Amino acid sequence: MNDCLDIINSALEAYLPDGEDVVSRAIRYSVGNGGKRIRPYLTLEFCRACGGDVSRALPYACAVEMIHTYSLIHDDLPCMDDDDLRRGKPSCHVEFGYANALLAGDALLTLAFETLAKAELPPQTTVSAVSILASAAGWSGMVGGQVMDLANEGRRVTARELEATDRLKTGALIKAACRLGCLAAGREDAVPFADEYADCLGIAFQIVDDILDVTSSADLLGKPVGSDEQNEKSTYVTFYGIEESRRTVSELTSRAKKALDGIEGDTSSLAAFADAMENRKN
Amino acid sequence: MNDCLDIINSALEAYLPDGEDVVSRAIRYSVGNGGKRIRPYLTLEFCRACGGDVSRALPYACAVEMIHTYSLIHDDLPCMDDDDLRRGKPSCHVEFGYANALLAGDALLTLAFETLAKAELPPQTTVSAVSILASAAGWSGMVGGQVMDLANEGRRVTARELEATDRLKTGALIKAACRLGCLAAGREDAVPFADEYADCLGIAFQIVDDILDVTSSADLLGKPVGSDEQNEKSTYVTFYGIEESRRTVSELTSRAKKALDGIEGDTSSLAAFADAMENRKN
Repeated sequence: MNDCLDIINSALEAYLPDGEDVVSRAIRYSVGNGGKRIRPYLTLEFCRACGGDVSRALPYACAVEMIHTYSLIHDDLPCMDDDDLRRGKPSCHVEFGYANALLAGDALLTLAFETLAKAELPPQTTVSAVSILASAAGWSGMVGGQVMDLANEGRRVTARELEATDRLKTGALIKAACRLGCLAAGREDAVPFADEYADCLGIAFQIVDDILDVTSSADLLGKPVGSDEQNEKSTYVTFYGIEESRRTVSELTSRAKKALDGIEGDTSSLAAFADAMENRKN
Repeated sequence: MNDCLDIINSALEAYLPDGEDVVSRAIRYSVGNGGKRIRPYLTLEFCRACGGDVSRALPYACAVEMIHTYSLIHDDLPCMDDDDLRRGKPSCHVEFGYANALLAGDALLTLAFETLAKAELPPQTTVSAVSILASAAGWSGMVGGQVMDLANEGRRVTARELEATDRLKTGALIKAACRLGCLAAGREDAVPFADEYADCLGIAFQIVDDILDVTSSADLLGKPVGSDEQNEKSTYVTFYGIEESRRTVSELTSRAKKALDGIEGDTSSLAAFADAMENRKN
């Protein structure tokens, strides 16, 4: 994955505004802030597994990461989660002020679509990519998940509601990332398998987050541990306990890897990635 | 223009989320809040003048209006202009709360691109439309104008800086609206003339706004008059006075109409529209 990370980081840098104005700096600060690049990795790796030209999928991969970063910037704002720290560093609005963070998020969300349009791929493919990414990011996806999250605040939610929220809030964009990789390779037939992989990975990812919130240290996480409990937030761990949650992650990881059997091509990296996500420490 | 308004409003309604959740309601409230629909009108009318099928341009027209509406929602937020009133009614965040207004803006911005992708036009045309709209809305356009506006706060700007800010803040999206109309008609050759028309109209529009802020009544404007003076904001009127500003608007309107000569087809509505914009009372 390290090769891939370098390629993604260089490509991202090339697409971001290079101005010295405060919003350009805020954008570079937030995108450059040590993200794991999980989503763009998935786009590139699905493209590769499907036999596509990875370099052509880079605009799609970077667009997904821009959407992810914008969502973190807006989530951290005082009117939302009011988080002062992100990956162990001051959040965008703490570093650059509230208005500039709002604008940096807006600019990144917009830039994602501008970047998609730069792909040297068949125009019909890019129109589909715009549609998939917008629907994953907007009201029927990530923003919809935020809306549910806000509505859940201050009341007890069921495990089912929690899963429905997470499917939109984090799952939709992970799924879009995988789909865009198949699309970039011209392999729409691989999409159902990518969807299954992404669905399992997305929920597993969230459960691991909840487990780490209880079991990790602040140093490793880059944010305070135990924040879910403090905020009286319902999580997979509060519903099922740590052991059962770990078992579920393990099952989901197996299912994700099994889904890869449907794809002709070398999916070993994607399988290894699912394992690594299960065992991650931050 | 009234026929056009009905068509735009029906199309917009069909594209907006129809949920009963607070963000869907906030989106419908803000889009439905009596906007003049100047930008989508320009898209449709340029399409018509260029001999295109107006119904196919509707997704483009609606996408531009969504971008415009999102920008108003985010501009009104407490961390930006902190405006409680928009078109004589409570701003989105006053009606639905800060977080929901933020999310409604994010969702609308995203929906704009999803809507573009729905156009039944050649995919290459839609990829160009995505690129044009994103670049007009983002850091190199409208958001860039906001950044300059924030940087101008609390200091005296020159007339040149004011015009540069307005060109991005309001001009870029008006230009995109006109361009998308030409594009939808498959007439890229008309774009330079549309650009000249839009440039003149955009600046004229802003100057008329500044004049109305001094000369109109709160009832007509739907917001307090004299707010620019109160905020010690530099405007065309503070630089040139009302008479000179009016003369400039008149010159710009003539230039806008002259640009239409470059377009084969019936541009009489676009000429009449430029006149109406010059003489508007709100």
